[in-house]
Amino acid sequence: MSAIDDLVNELSRLPTIGRKSAMRLTYHLLKQPPEQSKRLASALAVLTDRVRACERCNNLTEDALCSYCADPRRDAGVICVVEEAADIAAIERTGEFRGVFHVLGGRLSPLDGVGPDDLKVHGLVVRVQAGGVREVILATNPKLEGEATALYVQEQLAAFDVVVTRIARGIPVGGDLEYADGVTIAQAIAARRVMT
Amino acid sequence: MSAIDDLVNELSRLPTIGRKSAMRLTYHLLKQPPEQSKRLASALAVLTDRVRACERCNNLTEDALCSYCADPRRDAGVICVVEEAADIAAIERTGEFRGVFHVLGGRLSPLDGVGPDDLKVHGLVVRVQAGGVREVILATNPKLEGEATALYVQEQLAAFDVVVTRIARGIPVGGDLEYADGVTIAQAIAARRVMT
Repeated sequence: MSAIDDLVNELSRLPTIGRKSAMRLTYHLLKQPPEQSKRLASALAVLTDRVRACERCNNLTEDALCSYCADPRRDAGVICVVEEAADIAAIERTGEFRGVFHVLGGRLSPLDGVGPDDLKVHGLVVRVQAGGVREVILATNPKLEGEATALYVQEQLAAFDVVVTRIARGIPVGGDLEYADGVTIAQAIAARRVMT
Repeated sequence: MSAIDDLVNELSRLPTIGRKSAMRLTYHLLKQPPEQSKRLASALAVLTDRVRACERCNNLTEDALCSYCADPRRDAGVICVVEEAADIAAIERTGEFRGVFHVLGGRLSPLDGVGPDDLKVHGLVVRVQAGGVREVILATNPKLEGEATALYVQEQLAAFDVVVTRIARGIPVGGDLEYADGVTIAQAIAARRVMT
């Protein structure tokens, strides 16, 4: 039954989808009207044709510039640097940030063979060099690789007249001190602020 | 960014895939070579064109008869009745059953509006009526609906000279055949009892 096996195999390649989930999804689709699989198929088929990297910030876009770079209401003087395009969605959900982005496309990770040349840092340097950027916020993940990546980017920008900041590390809002790891608590104490 | 949103929307329609998972899968595909999304797209596109119901047993197949009905080495004198085609794979994984199948296409569930006419019981009756069937094993799930379905099928077969059996409750009550391990399913089949 090769059409079913084919789909199960392809679905199993996706992260977090094992063979049983792939089978369940396939049988589910077979019980739905054919249009549902067709729509999913065409959405997948056009994905990689339509989506490319923003010329300026490396975010995913269907145009030359992504929606943030193209939006005149965004403050182009503040660039938030993230590891992946997916991180932008997380930051945008806060509704607090009105600047623009720069997507590195990964994090320094020698074990995975990811070095400085694999990250889109050059484009960021060019943007800062062009002037008009007041602040670069390094929003890489507060993990070993993310910290190393932030330090690397900071070094690359050291020669320019721009403020480089790092997102605060601390206890998540709604989180529990009791369950936070020691490093996080230490960071939260070190980054304490005067209450006003 | 409509190509991304389209795919996220379509993926979110699938069971067990929420919006965040759909986004993660989409971003994952965008980091892979385009061929991967294309292969998945074409597997989905042909799925509902190629796959149809077996004329005899209602299993999913790409031919007139499914691989079990078409296989002369299978014992056509023993029919294992299951709710869904997906259950066949679970039974076949045990390697213990050498008969053929009949897929009802669901289970009696008044709350979901599924009545006797929505199940493919008639085809089973026709097969038994045609003769040559010694035993019908009712392998519907050991839940309320599955038990009711088994009872209903038993009634429909009562007039014929055929032994109707029910798989043993080696499968935990409330459990799902699709997720049971092979040994448990094998024991449930081996310990099947005549329905009285």
